[in-house]
Amino acid sequence: MPFFGRFSRGELRLHRIEAFSDGVFAIVVTLLVLELAVPLLKDHDSASELAHQLRELLPKFLSWLISFIIVCKFWLNHHHILGLARHANYAMVWLNSIFLMSQSFVPFPTAMMGEFPTNPLAVSFFGVVMAINTLLFIALHLYIMRRLLKPELEGGQDPHIVAKSMVGPLSYLLGAAVAWVSSHAAFVIYMLKPLFFIVPPKWHGIRE
Amino acid sequence: MPFFGRFSRGELRLHRIEAFSDGVFAIVVTLLVLELAVPLLKDHDSASELAHQLRELLPKFLSWLISFIIVCKFWLNHHHILGLARHANYAMVWLNSIFLMSQSFVPFPTAMMGEFPTNPLAVSFFGVVMAINTLLFIALHLYIMRRLLKPELEGGQDPHIVAKSMVGPLSYLLGAAVAWVSSHAAFVIYMLKPLFFIVPPKWHGIRE
Amino acid sequence: MPFFGRFSRGELRLHRIEAFSDGVFAIVVTLLVLELAVPLLKDHDSASELAHQLRELLPKFLSWLISFIIVCKFWLNHHHILGLARHANYAMVWLNSIFLMSQSFVPFPTAMMGEFPTNPLAVSFFGVVMAINTLLFIALHLYIMRRLLKPELEGGQDPHIVAKSMVGPLSYLLGAAVAWVSSHAAFVIYMLKPLFFIVPPKWHGIRE
Amino acid sequence: MPFFGRFSRGELRLHRIEAFSDGVFAIVVTLLVLELAVPLLKDHDSASELAHQLRELLPKFLSWLISFIIVCKFWLNHHHILGLARHANYAMVWLNSIFLMSQSFVPFPTAMMGEFPTNPLAVSFFGVVMAINTLLFIALHLYIMRRLLKPELEGGQDPHIVAKSMVGPLSYLLGAAVAWVSSHAAFVIYMLKPLFFIVPPKWHGIRE
Repeated sequence: MPFFGRFSRGELRLHRIEAFSDGVFAIVVTLLVLELAVPLLKDHDSASELAHQLRELLPKFLSWLISFIIVCKFWLNHHHILGLARHANYAMVWLNSIFLMSQSFVPFPTAMMGEFPTNPLAVSFFGVVMAINTLLFIALHLYIMRRLLKPELEGGQDPHIVAKSMVGPLSYLLGAAVAWVSSHAAFVIYMLKPLFFIVPPKWHGIRE
Repeated sequence: MPFFGRFSRGELRLHRIEAFSDGVFAIVVTLLVLELAVPLLKDHDSASELAHQLRELLPKFLSWLISFIIVCKFWLNHHHILGLARHANYAMVWLNSIFLMSQSFVPFPTAMMGEFPTNPLAVSFFGVVMAINTLLFIALHLYIMRRLLKPELEGGQDPHIVAKSMVGPLSYLLGAAVAWVSSHAAFVIYMLKPLFFIVPPKWHGIRE
Repeated sequence: MPFFGRFSRGELRLHRIEAFSDGVFAIVVTLLVLELAVPLLKDHDSASELAHQLRELLPKFLSWLISFIIVCKFWLNHHHILGLARHANYAMVWLNSIFLMSQSFVPFPTAMMGEFPTNPLAVSFFGVVMAINTLLFIALHLYIMRRLLKPELEGGQDPHIVAKSMVGPLSYLLGAAVAWVSSHAAFVIYMLKPLFFIVPPKWHGIRE
Repeated sequence: MPFFGRFSRGELRLHRIEAFSDGVFAIVVTLLVLELAVPLLKDHDSASELAHQLRELLPKFLSWLISFIIVCKFWLNHHHILGLARHANYAMVWLNSIFLMSQSFVPFPTAMMGEFPTNPLAVSFFGVVMAINTLLFIALHLYIMRRLLKPELEGGQDPHIVAKSMVGPLSYLLGAAVAWVSSHAAFVIYMLKPLFFIVPPKWHGIRE
């Protein structure tokens, strides 16, 4: 396979991949706040009108909070799996880029869920996007483990890690399904999900 | 406590935590300017109409200025406390992420205070958000000092540092309270506050 | 030529040029999503109305996808060519800055093509901008190869690389021309183009 | 002077100051494009209507171009002067932060000049902001030369560098004054100004 073979060539510098990825993660989490538009007030000086308007923004605050925690968790796990690689190659760069594309998309479903918190499609769409993000992350993880693992880590990886990782997309898909019955329940699932595996399940104390 | 114990595991690379944090700080301070919308003019060529509109933007300029200085000060102190840590672990990463979440929220209260500078809730809300930011920062600082301090710095830290740090949130809460009486006075407190402790109180001349 | 001579002076630190460039690339790809505005709904809870509105957004999703892949490819190739340079000088910094200027412009033609996907000028404009981006990238590549190439890489570079690179701008210009006949065909060309040379044609396994 | 004395204490890590600064520079240049809003069209498919609208955007393109080049030049010179410092201290961090504040403000006058290119105040304001930016940059430069210069560079710096640097703010102020007579002439001055000293006048070939 000469075409696919080219993708495993090349030894790219991990530090620029990390810099680019860290940039994307940092911008995504910070852009999320732009969805929180300052409310319009009839009486600019009325504290009670503003308090009322801020209560109306509650679903947007919640969407912002959920997405922020999820993206931070992806960042932490990304940090973890890049630490497993001995170097980078083209296949990894493209898997990473496609994963980052799905990360950079996050502000859109977040804004939509915040705008229409009782619309089943809006709430469900958020879960589907997060499931896809997790699947793309798993693909990157798998590739690094199979092709780029540091020799000193061989054998130390949990062979069931991928099966266990599938809990992630399945939870998001569960939330996406539940959204058609109760959007409140879906919000609860999206909030609870990141609390599992908040710490990567196996860490080998590598410091570089 | 096997659950909480996991958080103190792991030795993460400080440089990626710094890169991610620096990204968030840089984006927050730069996004602040987006709240300064170009005014609408009836006569596009009228300098006097534009001058009048720019005077109307004064509270927005002031909010922008205050937030910029505050976020820069957080960045400087963040730089300081990360220099105290020998490495990172999960608990620190999550404390850092939650602190960064509160930092990335800053553009919202800044915009609201700039839009409604005489609304007591808007001005007060700003102070409360900054108090929470400071408390989250203190939590991160404390954790690093207690669990991750470089061995060579042991004993050299001011034992009263946390008590002294509480001046920060208390000043912001004072401003938040004063806002209900006079928003002008609250602006003055928010402007003066960062001038205290503009230099971290104890610095050990560590260069890495 | 004392004026032009000054540009080849100076040995600048490559790591700050990479940091600045990585920042611009990361922000460009992440800003692209801001064009995906949350649709307005008459009935906030209607899944079918939202589904209809999301289908209307399809050209915007497509434009976003195309630009994301193109910018990632530029980032990857940029990573490659900066790895060929032994250091930086002023001429290189300015060629790099002008290239980054054209990269930072990408969100505008992307938004315009997404907004008016059947307007021949909008679709054509996108191709012209991408052709200019590619030409500016080739200029930077050429300059590095002729003036700043690492001594150990001399002779190992493909002498036909620039002629081959011209396939890039020509493909985009082809798309720009085709847009006046069929915007669908132009979209297809823009989508297929980055799939060629997705891996830089010659890579020497340099790891730094 | 115990208060001011504290500012010259501390040895901060230059790499985080560079990372934060590079982040701000990169975001400023990339945010500039957000001012280029996609025009509204009555007939979405009309190339001639879009062509007309794009011609109307010409002053915005020009403002964007001018600011992009100016900010890149500041970045390059910033890169140069930080290379002169042996380490950082608090005074330098604050001078740097205030300079970055004025840099992050640039999108506002840029947008205003693009929106009202024939309004003398709008065009003049741009020049004044750039003059202030240059003065703050000179202050940072002076401080580094006087207090933080690397020992090996002592004596090698041009003693007239600051007098020469004053050409910068004076040119911008000239443009700001000319704007009241002819905004076209002011645009020309703003465009020509960065072409002087496009290369820092003295460079010692330091590579780190």
